[in-house]
Amino acid sequence: METVKNDKQTFLKRTHTCGELRKQQIGETVVLNGWIDTRRDLGGVIFLDLRDRYGITQIVFAPQHDEELYRRAQLLRGEYVVAVSGIVEHRPDGTYNPNIPTGEVDVVVRELEVLSKAETPPFQIKDRVDVSEDHRLKYRYIDLRRPTMRNNLLMRHRMAQTTRRYFDEHNFVEVETPFLMKSTPEGARDFLVPSRVNKGKFYALPQSPQTYKQILMVSGFDRYFQIVKCFRDEDLRADRQPEFTQIDIEMSFVDEDDVFTISEGLMVRLLKEVLDVEFAAPFDRLSFIDAMKRYGTDKPDRRFGLEITTLSEIVRDVPFKVFSDTIKNSGAVAGIVAPGCASYTRNQLDNLVELTKSLGAKGLVYVKMTEKGYETPVQKFLSQDDLAAIANAVGANTGDLILIVADTWKNCYSVLGDLRLEFGKRLELIDHDKIDLHWVTEFPLFEWNEEDKRYYAMHHPFTSPRLGDIEKLKESVEGVDARAYDLVMNGNEIAGGSIRIHTPELQSIVFDKLGITPEEAEQKFGFLTDAFKYGAPPHGGIAFGFDRLVMLFAGQKSIRDVIAFPKTSSGLSLMDGSPSEVSEEQLKELHLKLRL
Amino acid sequence: METVKNDKQTFLKRTHTCGELRKQQIGETVVLNGWIDTRRDLGGVIFLDLRDRYGITQIVFAPQHDEELYRRAQLLRGEYVVAVSGIVEHRPDGTYNPNIPTGEVDVVVRELEVLSKAETPPFQIKDRVDVSEDHRLKYRYIDLRRPTMRNNLLMRHRMAQTTRRYFDEHNFVEVETPFLMKSTPEGARDFLVPSRVNKGKFYALPQSPQTYKQILMVSGFDRYFQIVKCFRDEDLRADRQPEFTQIDIEMSFVDEDDVFTISEGLMVRLLKEVLDVEFAAPFDRLSFIDAMKRYGTDKPDRRFGLEITTLSEIVRDVPFKVFSDTIKNSGAVAGIVAPGCASYTRNQLDNLVELTKSLGAKGLVYVKMTEKGYETPVQKFLSQDDLAAIANAVGANTGDLILIVADTWKNCYSVLGDLRLEFGKRLELIDHDKIDLHWVTEFPLFEWNEEDKRYYAMHHPFTSPRLGDIEKLKESVEGVDARAYDLVMNGNEIAGGSIRIHTPELQSIVFDKLGITPEEAEQKFGFLTDAFKYGAPPHGGIAFGFDRLVMLFAGQKSIRDVIAFPKTSSGLSLMDGSPSEVSEEQLKELHLKLRL
Repeated sequence: METVKNDKQTFLKRTHTCGELRKQQIGETVVLNGWIDTRRDLGGVIFLDLRDRYGITQIVFAPQHDEELYRRAQLLRGEYVVAVSGIVEHRPDGTYNPNIPTGEVDVVVRELEVLSKAETPPFQIKDRVDVSEDHRLKYRYIDLRRPTMRNNLLMRHRMAQTTRRYFDEHNFVEVETPFLMKSTPEGARDFLVPSRVNKGKFYALPQSPQTYKQILMVSGFDRYFQIVKCFRDEDLRADRQPEFTQIDIEMSFVDEDDVFTISEGLMVRLLKEVLDVEFAAPFDRLSFIDAMKRYGTDKPDRRFGLEITTLSEIVRDVPFKVFSDTIKNSGAVAGIVAPGCASYTRNQLDNLVELTKSLGAKGLVYVKMTEKGYETPVQKFLSQDDLAAIANAVGANTGDLILIVADTWKNCYSVLGDLRLEFGKRLELIDHDKIDLHWVTEFPLFEWNEEDKRYYAMHHPFTSPRLGDIEKLKESVEGVDARAYDLVMNGNEIAGGSIRIHTPELQSIVFDKLGITPEEAEQKFGFLTDAFKYGAPPHGGIAFGFDRLVMLFAGQKSIRDVIAFPKTSSGLSLMDGSPSEVSEEQLKELHLKLRL
Repeated sequence: METVKNDKQTFLKRTHTCGELRKQQIGETVVLNGWIDTRRDLGGVIFLDLRDRYGITQIVFAPQHDEELYRRAQLLRGEYVVAVSGIVEHRPDGTYNPNIPTGEVDVVVRELEVLSKAETPPFQIKDRVDVSEDHRLKYRYIDLRRPTMRNNLLMRHRMAQTTRRYFDEHNFVEVETPFLMKSTPEGARDFLVPSRVNKGKFYALPQSPQTYKQILMVSGFDRYFQIVKCFRDEDLRADRQPEFTQIDIEMSFVDEDDVFTISEGLMVRLLKEVLDVEFAAPFDRLSFIDAMKRYGTDKPDRRFGLEITTLSEIVRDVPFKVFSDTIKNSGAVAGIVAPGCASYTRNQLDNLVELTKSLGAKGLVYVKMTEKGYETPVQKFLSQDDLAAIANAVGANTGDLILIVADTWKNCYSVLGDLRLEFGKRLELIDHDKIDLHWVTEFPLFEWNEEDKRYYAMHHPFTSPRLGDIEKLKESVEGVDARAYDLVMNGNEIAGGSIRIHTPELQSIVFDKLGITPEEAEQKFGFLTDAFKYGAPPHGGIAFGFDRLVMLFAGQKSIRDVIAFPKTSSGLSLMDGSPSEVSEEQLKELHLKLRL
């Protein structure tokens, strides 16, 4: 075992990592490289934990071995990077550390080299340290030394490798699609990249490789996948990033079942290999309408009950106008039960009404079911029979609180969906050890946007309508379903996709219904519809939000904790200070002026 | 075997691919999906080749089986996408096609469904079809159906999978680094991305993840890799792309040997798994000086000889001033032998002189070695002894032509390097079945730029000087070598890297020598030098040009042939028409005006 440097060596190179030594190496001379973690001085002996990615090994300096070395060890501080050579020894009985795999041994140091000194870090290198996220992001290189962050990124690595192996085994081809593409804003805003060589022109960063992966199907690649960065210049919400990663998939000669089978296989494999959890395919399927009516959302968290009950039929003719008029105006009335919440105080109930309004509903009707009967502010509008019918329908028992919303169809269910989640949390009904995975299917093809007074594609304009709905589509977009689907995990949409349109004729009809003129369609998507003219296979695909998927697997609350270098919600990178001002010279070359 | 559609099925889904059927399936009813490739009508029977990514299967329509079906088959044209159901049959003796794995069988069709019609493609779907590259790029979806392009992308896929598996097996962690980062132009131009949310500010697309991967080493990730897109806004040369892919690697606690070992292992694995070629590690190493003096380039093609011979000592005192003055002025004189080229005509020789000048040299001295002795235009300045000494040094024989260049050191060798390559091609000396892989090491740390009158980092400003040169560096940058290295394959630089600086002190010295002020260094790279203050391990890495690597493996002449959707040399995507104009609305949101 060589422990002195040869001519070419610039430092003592490790023979083992800090996670590697066991009883078997006792007596061997080894070299370790790593960071000084913690330090204990006991009875004139210095014990240091030496840390690297692979683990921690205790190293020992005792004055009786080498006084000069001992003095130098006294100068070592936390986060110094050192190389040590020494002999592996059995720790004395009673000093084993059962929490680490190297806990039975330590290394008595014979040679020490300081590779880098370190200032005191801005915060401690350990989990659950109380530090603001901005501070963590500014000093990300320190933050990434913390065990949780390291493990998050190692899990992300493992998931990426497993994903690619899975698709490779299933005959998918990884094809890199361009990052500098054409700007075709439709939905979210593009990030633009000015061209220096082509004056006044711009590339756009991809919001998704959608058109390219469809082109690859037309080219006959049959099965495509890619783990790829995508970009959306949105007003960032708490858990959005301007750049995000998706697992992107497209398949030829398929229908929904094929896409589901491949996607379920991926999830089953990831759960098994990464979390050692068995989960059986096929997954449940819920239609969009069912998901909305039972859970008030298109991404239900089914790890707990509290399902919504539709009350429209029951309250259609009650004297209470708020209910009956809502039904007359094509709205809906529905409710949920908050078990045991009949004890809520007036104040708690007022807050609940406020919460409901802030969620977008016109109001909330609550009914306490007490030993004394029904208690509700709308007592005079609803008979005991009506109240009993409602209580019976929602399945309420004595001691429960019934929450009822009457509103437009969408508002009614989505507000109740939010209240359901709120009570799931309040009452701690969510079983966090449980995994819920299911498909939501049969989405509407179009969605009305009240602001722009126009229809938008609910998924994207390349999604095929349900085949039986194509004739209907020529007349009206209302009631036309899409061959679109989402995969939902624990109340999070983790993937979404569709069977695509593959003929220029049907694509034209859909563009037309979206108010995209033939000229505009040609200018934006002409290359795709042109491609369809030369023989396009039936095809479909899906894209997984990889950041969110890793977040859920790692049990984290924010995607920022599974991204090495994320941006803040205002798009700032606090570590490197981007975005930043650029020189007038750079702007000139790009033929741009600031509009300030 | 189900061959009729059930309620949910929208088309006849394949039971097999077009590359799958063998004698074993004879008698089975199967469904195939694919593109109509070629068509032969023989004796009233229609034979069609049905094509998909996996192969070709012959399908047969005979009028005696089903007249209606036969009539419909007559309407099928090339590139139609069809689904057929039929029975696998043995082809009659003598009609086997030994060139395809499915050549012993065909499928007698019983059911036909046209999934998509196709117009006549703009060019034929086969290799070696005479069509301009621009036309191919515009109709890339057709071009990608050609066997060569399909195989190139499949090889690229295989190489990417093998690469990631290799690094995963060697404990490297794949970490995604940001695409929206800080603009720190130093060397090539950045592509900029205007920020909408942060008025007047810009992100830059990464020229490489250099600073991030170094940060990851400071964070303790120990071994990092990524196959990642990078961007350079250069004036595009023939074989450059604004976006390109690199295999990016960084390692902690290493020196050059560790980086070489890991890189060599990757190449050995790729050659074996992708090309089934055995190549032994370790690879040869050449110093930069040696490479220049022997091959006139830092990326020698050693698949042929014609090495350069330095003649400076021999001609130091000759009366021919062009030689002796060059030596006096610290230039160099060197030559190569063009075997058998003494027969060159006056016209050929004049062209050679012109070529040499166009390569940047002041001139070319040639000496024919004929039966009659030396023939050269500079006969009167060089004695027979001088000529004999030169001929002896370069190893010329009767019938050979000696080419001599006297110029500045760099010009002399690089022009001879170009002439060497030219004669390698002219004389067909290059063995294209051979693989040459070697390292070039010991590059200078800095390179003088005559235009800007300043030094630039030859590799990049984070490269460590040779440890023995650090004291020298404090005085002068001349003669300071870098711990940088390139990997060269068949005359192409396929990878480059270095051992990095890992202390703030040394980094400051190097920034200073590059004329980067402390303020500028802080503003551009402050986060990296700050990170070094908290304990940085010795580290180094390398990046492989993935496009070029695939090109060499696939035996292609252009990287555009191994990129699915490349851009032209003026940065245009001919298929989607990017870059393109954007709306005034988009510019306004980005706080920009065009400067036209």
